[in-house]
Amino acid sequence: MAVMYLVCKPPNKSHRRRRSLTQAEMNANRSIRKSESGLSSEISGQPYSVSVLKEGYCTAESDGTFRADGTISLITGPQTILVDTGGPWDRDFLVAKLKEKGLTPENVATVVGTHGHSDHVGNLGLFPNAKIIVGCDISVGDRYLPNQLAEGEPYPIDDFVSVIPTPGHMGRDVSVLVKGTSEGTVLVAGDLFERCHDEDSWKELSENPQIQESNRQMALQIADVIIPGHGPLFRVHRE
Amino acid sequence: MAVMYLVCKPPNKSHRRRRSLTQAEMNANRSIRKSESGLSSEISGQPYSVSVLKEGYCTAESDGTFRADGTISLITGPQTILVDTGGPWDRDFLVAKLKEKGLTPENVATVVGTHGHSDHVGNLGLFPNAKIIVGCDISVGDRYLPNQLAEGEPYPIDDFVSVIPTPGHMGRDVSVLVKGTSEGTVLVAGDLFERCHDEDSWKELSENPQIQESNRQMALQIADVIIPGHGPLFRVHRE
Repeated sequence: MAVMYLVCKPPNKSHRRRRSLTQAEMNANRSIRKSESGLSSEISGQPYSVSVLKEGYCTAESDGTFRADGTISLITGPQTILVDTGGPWDRDFLVAKLKEKGLTPENVATVVGTHGHSDHVGNLGLFPNAKIIVGCDISVGDRYLPNQLAEGEPYPIDDFVSVIPTPGHMGRDVSVLVKGTSEGTVLVAGDLFERCHDEDSWKELSENPQIQESNRQMALQIADVIIPGHGPLFRVHRE
Repeated sequence: MAVMYLVCKPPNKSHRRRRSLTQAEMNANRSIRKSESGLSSEISGQPYSVSVLKEGYCTAESDGTFRADGTISLITGPQTILVDTGGPWDRDFLVAKLKEKGLTPENVATVVGTHGHSDHVGNLGLFPNAKIIVGCDISVGDRYLPNQLAEGEPYPIDDFVSVIPTPGHMGRDVSVLVKGTSEGTVLVAGDLFERCHDEDSWKELSENPQIQESNRQMALQIADVIIPGHGPLFRVHRE
């Protein structure tokens, strides 16, 4: 799509990132620890709850291929928001998981693809009438809406849920921030984080490691729980 | 997805691009003209024919939004290859167009998403069993295959059809090159070109205009017909 870029500046001119870096610097002396233990994949909240419908993974096979899929998350409350849709092979799985929640694809108001990789945007077509946000592009049907995500500004869905720009893994990634859950603030982060302890791998997978590192640090300052793209959700402890 | 990047180098280290630049330089004195006239959207060929199932568009609306969709192309011959799938709203349209051709989604062996924007990869989920190529990621089910696209190497489907790396619009775009049609070599180019005469707009839509410009020049040297992402196909005249 062409539209959004007409109002988009390159992400390294982001106001948000500049603010975030400042915050990260201010918090540089705080000790941050990440932990997977003791967290359920169903986080209740008021007004929004967050469920991991499928936990992403990435495993090397002996034949040189990799098995991989992206995490699929559902946010339920005043509206229903799906974050990432898995790969094309997840179509029937995704419909079945929604049904378990008492939902059909038609009940999903907003679908967010954190970035345009095939294991995250494989099933956008299940939601032809939803608001679709993929990276910095926001569309309803074939109508693309102006926004400032690629200029570094959040796109609020309401007072509790916002789409925020977190580029680096690709050029225009976004994450979804949910406030007010029983675990505090949850960030559904796509591949900003591969998994809890991904220090061995994330840079090799990044189109822009420097920008991604800035956004990872920002995320660790604002989120109590992070749902990564290819592993279990984890808690952030700031001490 | 994480896998491909383990074997991928940043596109500006591309061997292919370096070779292409050299070729472009060698051909710098050749006059190139582009023209939309006199071309059918159905190009026959041996062994492969190319059809434009939907011509992409991008039009500004008076309310500040844009109406946009990506071109959907079908390559038929020894195997059936779909290049780009339109936006999520195109699901029923795409199934109907395939049916007009005597095909079901199950008949499509390979689906290429030239890049991960929502108006190009909206219907990957119609093809859960196909080989899926989105940008530099190649998968069959959740198994991701090693390849060198992001290092600048083509990914040949057979002697007549190749996926070639053409980044710039996004970080890891690809195009599909079809040799041996009645119009010569056809390049299904995604948003490498918005339309025939897009000099007023393509750079604003580009994540990396310098790299995209190199790949545009390369494309104009190797293709006789280009199918762009948001306008009618056009002929390239080299004189």
